[in-house]
Amino acid sequence: MPRKPKKGKPTGKIRIIPLGGLGEIGKNMTVIEYENDMIVVDCGLGFPEEDMPGIDLVIPDITYLETNKDKLRGVLLTHGHEDHIGAIPYLLRTINPPIYGTPLTLGIIRNKLEEHTLPWKPDLRTVNAGDTVKLGSVSAEFIHVNHSIADACAIAIRTPLGTLIHTGDFKLDTSPIDSEMMDIVRLGELGREGVLMLMCESTNAERPGHTPSEKKVGASLENIFSTHPKKRIIIATFSSNVHRVQQIIDTSAHHGRKVAITGRSMLNIVSAATELGYMKIPAGVLVDINDIKRYKPSELTIVTTGSQGEPMSALYRMAFSDHMQVSLDANDLVVLSASAIPGNEKLVGRIINELSKNQVEVLHDAVVEVHVSGHACQEELKLMQALTKPRYFMPIHGESRHLAANRDLARYMGMDDKNIFISEIGKILEIDADGARWAGSVPAGKVLVDGYGVGDVGNIVLRDRRHLAQDGLIVVVATVDTDERMLLSGPDIVSRGFVYVREAEELMEEARSIAYDSIMDILDGNDAVDRMQLKKSVKDDLTKFLYAKTKRKPMILPVIMNV
Amino acid sequence: MPRKPKKGKPTGKIRIIPLGGLGEIGKNMTVIEYENDMIVVDCGLGFPEEDMPGIDLVIPDITYLETNKDKLRGVLLTHGHEDHIGAIPYLLRTINPPIYGTPLTLGIIRNKLEEHTLPWKPDLRTVNAGDTVKLGSVSAEFIHVNHSIADACAIAIRTPLGTLIHTGDFKLDTSPIDSEMMDIVRLGELGREGVLMLMCESTNAERPGHTPSEKKVGASLENIFSTHPKKRIIIATFSSNVHRVQQIIDTSAHHGRKVAITGRSMLNIVSAATELGYMKIPAGVLVDINDIKRYKPSELTIVTTGSQGEPMSALYRMAFSDHMQVSLDANDLVVLSASAIPGNEKLVGRIINELSKNQVEVLHDAVVEVHVSGHACQEELKLMQALTKPRYFMPIHGESRHLAANRDLARYMGMDDKNIFISEIGKILEIDADGARWAGSVPAGKVLVDGYGVGDVGNIVLRDRRHLAQDGLIVVVATVDTDERMLLSGPDIVSRGFVYVREAEELMEEARSIAYDSIMDILDGNDAVDRMQLKKSVKDDLTKFLYAKTKRKPMILPVIMNV
Repeated sequence: MPRKPKKGKPTGKIRIIPLGGLGEIGKNMTVIEYENDMIVVDCGLGFPEEDMPGIDLVIPDITYLETNKDKLRGVLLTHGHEDHIGAIPYLLRTINPPIYGTPLTLGIIRNKLEEHTLPWKPDLRTVNAGDTVKLGSVSAEFIHVNHSIADACAIAIRTPLGTLIHTGDFKLDTSPIDSEMMDIVRLGELGREGVLMLMCESTNAERPGHTPSEKKVGASLENIFSTHPKKRIIIATFSSNVHRVQQIIDTSAHHGRKVAITGRSMLNIVSAATELGYMKIPAGVLVDINDIKRYKPSELTIVTTGSQGEPMSALYRMAFSDHMQVSLDANDLVVLSASAIPGNEKLVGRIINELSKNQVEVLHDAVVEVHVSGHACQEELKLMQALTKPRYFMPIHGESRHLAANRDLARYMGMDDKNIFISEIGKILEIDADGARWAGSVPAGKVLVDGYGVGDVGNIVLRDRRHLAQDGLIVVVATVDTDERMLLSGPDIVSRGFVYVREAEELMEEARSIAYDSIMDILDGNDAVDRMQLKKSVKDDLTKFLYAKTKRKPMILPVIMNV
Repeated sequence: MPRKPKKGKPTGKIRIIPLGGLGEIGKNMTVIEYENDMIVVDCGLGFPEEDMPGIDLVIPDITYLETNKDKLRGVLLTHGHEDHIGAIPYLLRTINPPIYGTPLTLGIIRNKLEEHTLPWKPDLRTVNAGDTVKLGSVSAEFIHVNHSIADACAIAIRTPLGTLIHTGDFKLDTSPIDSEMMDIVRLGELGREGVLMLMCESTNAERPGHTPSEKKVGASLENIFSTHPKKRIIIATFSSNVHRVQQIIDTSAHHGRKVAITGRSMLNIVSAATELGYMKIPAGVLVDINDIKRYKPSELTIVTTGSQGEPMSALYRMAFSDHMQVSLDANDLVVLSASAIPGNEKLVGRIINELSKNQVEVLHDAVVEVHVSGHACQEELKLMQALTKPRYFMPIHGESRHLAANRDLARYMGMDDKNIFISEIGKILEIDADGARWAGSVPAGKVLVDGYGVGDVGNIVLRDRRHLAQDGLIVVVATVDTDERMLLSGPDIVSRGFVYVREAEELMEEARSIAYDSIMDILDGNDAVDRMQLKKSVKDDLTKFLYAKTKRKPMILPVIMNV
């Protein structure tokens, strides 16, 4: 509980501790504490970097939450994207705090949780924009923002020391599809009351100007449909972008086309969003993907997943002639209504190339305006600062370059450098009545998920995987009798990923003979024989030999058995 | 020799066979034959895709040249970029045709060949734009074009059947740094005479408009220097872009700054280009990188390699505090005067992030116009077609999407689809007096270079490397006496890249016991015991067990020794 304030000046402390999303893309998670009350904003996952082979997902290290679970009053979710909610099923393995989110956000989570077995029933609590929830000595107000998913919110956290605003992901769309512009009035009111700290997303902080309205995509779609009346139109987009899907359906209906949907996540979200009223599908427009043969190309639109080139997605399977119901040819137009997330460019390119090779026309965001970002550009970020007029500023959600660009915007707005805090994961910013300062750190990091394993793959395992990928592997096996100093069998050499053995028999024979000499030198010598020494000697001699011959350094794994 | 034409109609045949650069980026190489005379345009390398771990370079399969070396009259080089000349040292291992190129191109090759031991002295023959060389029954004229390296040419190949134009890489720069605009007059003259076939690069065929002039970068640099008078300025660019480097030096001199150069390839090219007269450095401007401490930040520009984020480059080492002479801080401005080549975005991002984290200001092409492309955009590609008015058109240099986009431009220009040929590597296009048609194929493909090995890493080795990278490796070793049906030693289990063993002792112990049961089942059974059978059984049982436990599929390598 907060100590009693002396002379009206609160003596409590706020602590802001990002556990993810700073200095990296994804796995957004921020801890905010006021004395003995802790809340968490978002609980997202990240995707593996290219130096993490075999890893499926990356989630935040939540040790700090686990050890402080008694203080944890709730997890507040800003919206339903994976990088904000994707780690919830993992968090729920060890702790079970109340989880607050808007109806669509919680709908997506419910869907997701069906694939996980949990030790308890999750405590999901629905809120709507405008609602305030009490969480111990602090309260949280959900404020409507625009984003590339419906039902997204910023969160204003009121503490005895003042109000903190966490923007979540946002953009300002003056002509949104659901007619609900970001609640800049409410943000402005909070600014007038006084905002202690603004934590503001930084994704597009390097981009000048304003992010275009989602409506602009509608105009592009209208144009595409008008100029391709004869073709079947296949549109890939993010399944979570329900307003985009709504626009595709509306444009199709307007042009007298039926709409078929394919891709598991797309089907899931369309049904969830329709049920919850976030999507309105005109009667008779939807048709089953199994019935598309009944329609001429000019009568059909297909909405699909796969806009990031994901190799298991419906669009990928269509492109590589592996989709059950859809095969593409010169009568088809494929529209990629998305931009490639950094790192996915090559995957997306692979699909565009394969389609081009097969005479399928492709439109993508480099050629036509078929996508707009969901994140605020510089003018909107400046507006957020101008509205909230915060005393302190912390750029969040972005790599270092984005955080630095957002800081530069705050400087431009006249904020003093000493009031801007570029944090990192695990780092504690403490605020009390006397001001704000860094105050140590808590455990934080990347927990890698590989198959069923959470956290059992770390740096050593990854280093070995990278080494194996680079130059492959040589296993040297020999059976010795260390007492009798005799080689009983071997050395045998097995290699994988090093060289095509059938065409390198000579090299492998030489390697065997090097290993043989290496073992015999020790067995025939005068020193005591031990297996470690034999292994080391074989490894050193072979490494040297193979590097001189091939300029490669395969992993060498000597297995010396003693009988 | 060409057969004697009957009734004035040539009876010979042209064959156009791309060996690289179509359906892929890089390793550009095109074979052109007229009867018994063969020439090759360019001989480039490519960079490995992400599914080729450990591979250093990719070069074209030149089997077809090797088996036809008696017909090969020469290799013609359009310009000195790696993707056009990089495979020359490998080609020269087995054949030694005359190699024609402009002075800078051959200068770069000479530099490169110093690192290779060849069985003969290469036959390098210097040409200049405007020159024509006779190559058996055909001749080749070098025509000046603009590009992001000096001394670049298109090549017009005259055959008895007509003229073929190969554009190489080009752009139209009406205000080039060396005042030499692309020779559109000569191209237009050829067009008036009649062009049989235009082979035109496609890199930027998806981009509308014109590629800006190199001079535009000069204006940006001038602006950057004017607005950062106090900072030391570090500029990274492609070393081969001598005009860019020239502009950096000129701007520095104009602002009273000295210039230091770092990075091996940058030093090499600056010295070669200066010697050959392609670069003019004002007296007293260059200073040694070891002497930079003598100058204030405001007095110095550093030109460096590393614009693609290459982990061994000078800029990378500066960013990660590992450069001998340069350490960066808030007094420095880093300018990335290049755009990331597709696939390098993440590497470049890593540098930008690290610099941002350390308070170094960074300007890159997403923020300021500090780079222009060296490739023709749509309007220039259309101009090339309008000038040359070819009968046939073949888009070259690009992935399928770029070739398709260039085809669309030809359609737009009014060319009939039956005269447009989208080829692929190894595919033969035959042209004779009656027309053009596909005519079979020759061996072609990707030869992988890994260390000293050329071609010894193929699909099987790569598949193993990818498998090893994905989930690591389990080696199971046991010594048996197959005659006595006895297990003498083991099974021992060694794993790498699978799971951190110290925290998974139980799992590994279970795995050992599965392997033990698997072996004993066979030894205790009634069927004949052979090692293959033992291996298969251990592998199958362990794969099943580990997948059920971990949802991973490590490579399982059973080694059964028989004593």
